[in-house]
Amino acid sequence: MASMARIIAVNKLVISLIVPRLSEDDLIATIFAPLAGPGGLRLQDDAALLKVAPGEELVLTKDMLVAGVHFFADDPPGGIARKALRVNLSDLAAKGAEPRGFLLGLGLPGDWQEEWLKAFAAGLAGDCKSFAIALLGGDTVRTPGPLTLSITAIGAVPEGKMVPRGAARDGDHLFVTGTIGDAALGLKLRLGAEADQAWIARLSDDQRAHLLDRYLLPRPRLGLRAALRYHARAAMDISDGFAGDLTKMLRLAGLTAEIDAGQVPLSDAARAALNLEPQLLSTILCGGDDYEILCAVPPEESKGFLQAAEAAGIEAREIGICTSGDQPVRIKGAHGEWLSFEAGSFQHF
Amino acid sequence: MASMARIIAVNKLVISLIVPRLSEDDLIATIFAPLAGPGGLRLQDDAALLKVAPGEELVLTKDMLVAGVHFFADDPPGGIARKALRVNLSDLAAKGAEPRGFLLGLGLPGDWQEEWLKAFAAGLAGDCKSFAIALLGGDTVRTPGPLTLSITAIGAVPEGKMVPRGAARDGDHLFVTGTIGDAALGLKLRLGAEADQAWIARLSDDQRAHLLDRYLLPRPRLGLRAALRYHARAAMDISDGFAGDLTKMLRLAGLTAEIDAGQVPLSDAARAALNLEPQLLSTILCGGDDYEILCAVPPEESKGFLQAAEAAGIEAREIGICTSGDQPVRIKGAHGEWLSFEAGSFQHF
Repeated sequence: MASMARIIAVNKLVISLIVPRLSEDDLIATIFAPLAGPGGLRLQDDAALLKVAPGEELVLTKDMLVAGVHFFADDPPGGIARKALRVNLSDLAAKGAEPRGFLLGLGLPGDWQEEWLKAFAAGLAGDCKSFAIALLGGDTVRTPGPLTLSITAIGAVPEGKMVPRGAARDGDHLFVTGTIGDAALGLKLRLGAEADQAWIARLSDDQRAHLLDRYLLPRPRLGLRAALRYHARAAMDISDGFAGDLTKMLRLAGLTAEIDAGQVPLSDAARAALNLEPQLLSTILCGGDDYEILCAVPPEESKGFLQAAEAAGIEAREIGICTSGDQPVRIKGAHGEWLSFEAGSFQHF
Repeated sequence: MASMARIIAVNKLVISLIVPRLSEDDLIATIFAPLAGPGGLRLQDDAALLKVAPGEELVLTKDMLVAGVHFFADDPPGGIARKALRVNLSDLAAKGAEPRGFLLGLGLPGDWQEEWLKAFAAGLAGDCKSFAIALLGGDTVRTPGPLTLSITAIGAVPEGKMVPRGAARDGDHLFVTGTIGDAALGLKLRLGAEADQAWIARLSDDQRAHLLDRYLLPRPRLGLRAALRYHARAAMDISDGFAGDLTKMLRLAGLTAEIDAGQVPLSDAARAALNLEPQLLSTILCGGDDYEILCAVPPEESKGFLQAAEAAGIEAREIGICTSGDQPVRIKGAHGEWLSFEAGSFQHF
């Protein structure tokens, strides 16, 4: 932890307007130090120390989240913290990596409240426990912009066992975990646009709660990491929309696929919404924040993969086969017609 | 690299206002992928891979920088990039660590320009070469706030050899590298406040250029890392002001010190400024952005430390002795009077 508001520190007028309730050092000592693991050195050093076991490699990932862009500033603070951590853990899960620790960069607007920060830290503490991961260090700065979070998560894999994104082969089976589209629909609920009121109103309370919750709180599929390492040839987490991410993964390997939209796993809530408003298919297939795993598994490993996923309590569904070609992934609609997507939304031919 | 502007993606009106000239994927592929090292996997994967040699431990540090707080939005883009990287490398240097790679989080305001970003990447590329460090990965997001950078740097030390911040002992000699206060004076030049015009005007062009340059471009003391590992008991980089950081380091070990301000090494430019305006002593001793190394060395290692520093081409000066006690560090002025600092600025008793 280092380097505080340099420019502001000189301008006494500005500092009096945005002076925090706690100094940066106090804030770190009282609120964040309790989350630090052994390598975090009580957050009292310039840096963190990470021991790596022989035969292991590290997997590093970093995601930034900005209030008003990736979450709403008035979302529950503990949920914001957990989302920021979990989107990073989702990347580690997709690589077959075991989480080892994380660093937190926190850009705080001038009007931050101690209560807010305590709730934020409590959410983070809960997830540290749930995922057996500790805070290693980070930085806290003041920003004139919106709340900004930057987390770097570190995981470990046995040497040579990281599951890459681009190694799928012709004939591999494509699997996806959980259900697709819930979070994108949840975001529509959260935004509550006029055009969406009709289908939103006709969902049950439980269905609405399910979709909203999926938007607010990703579930990183860490339980799948051994299954991925043993059986999958390529994997990624779906964060930027199922259709786009699938195309991205296959294109890296010179592959494509034809997918039947009906094969894409949907929750009851998403299916209900889609029945009420068929246009939501594009939201479901192209919206983001799924944080499910997409992977390519050799045919001879498919059964083993499904068994391992089931043993881990994670539903995985086969959605298609990789084929050679460099055209974008094609997705077939309910009546056998091909859908095409452009600028992030599906269109019928 | 994952997770793009989720909320914005849904709001088509907003997207049309801030649509980038390059997509995130194109931006990464054309501008940042050339900086990626082997573990960066061409920035095409969800995560980076880092191999750690047997007998090594990793040192991790993270600093965030916000335009208008830690640098000026109209500073040269290459300089902004280098500063963001170097403040992190300075932390690694203080820990005796060899830099191995870094992850870059980039929060871009809506009005970013491709030219700006290319110059930013070119500055980063230059430093990657200078410091033999490669980009491992990161994340690029849009922000409605100011340009925000978050860098996580990773270094390596032989097992058990990280130089901690809090391990100084009674009787250890205190050393500081380079010169103190230049960057804080350079910031005053950059700000150009009315009250500072008199002394600024009377400096030579070279003196002004020196101070400004020291503010814009930190010089991480990586050359000192072996000397620190072999000879120092404790070390930190001075980023938040010499007096405060010294107190911080000693307090961790239940120590204090009495320092003669005349012993603190100053550049010719800083000395000239101080002669013109004696009040600048507080800026020099309490201002930030020095990125020099402060360390505590056992008496029997002092000679060896100085020799090793000299061999590395880095000036180090002894500034005092650690003594037990929990009072703040005391600093003696030019006439033997004790200076006291409060709220980040020095005051005479």
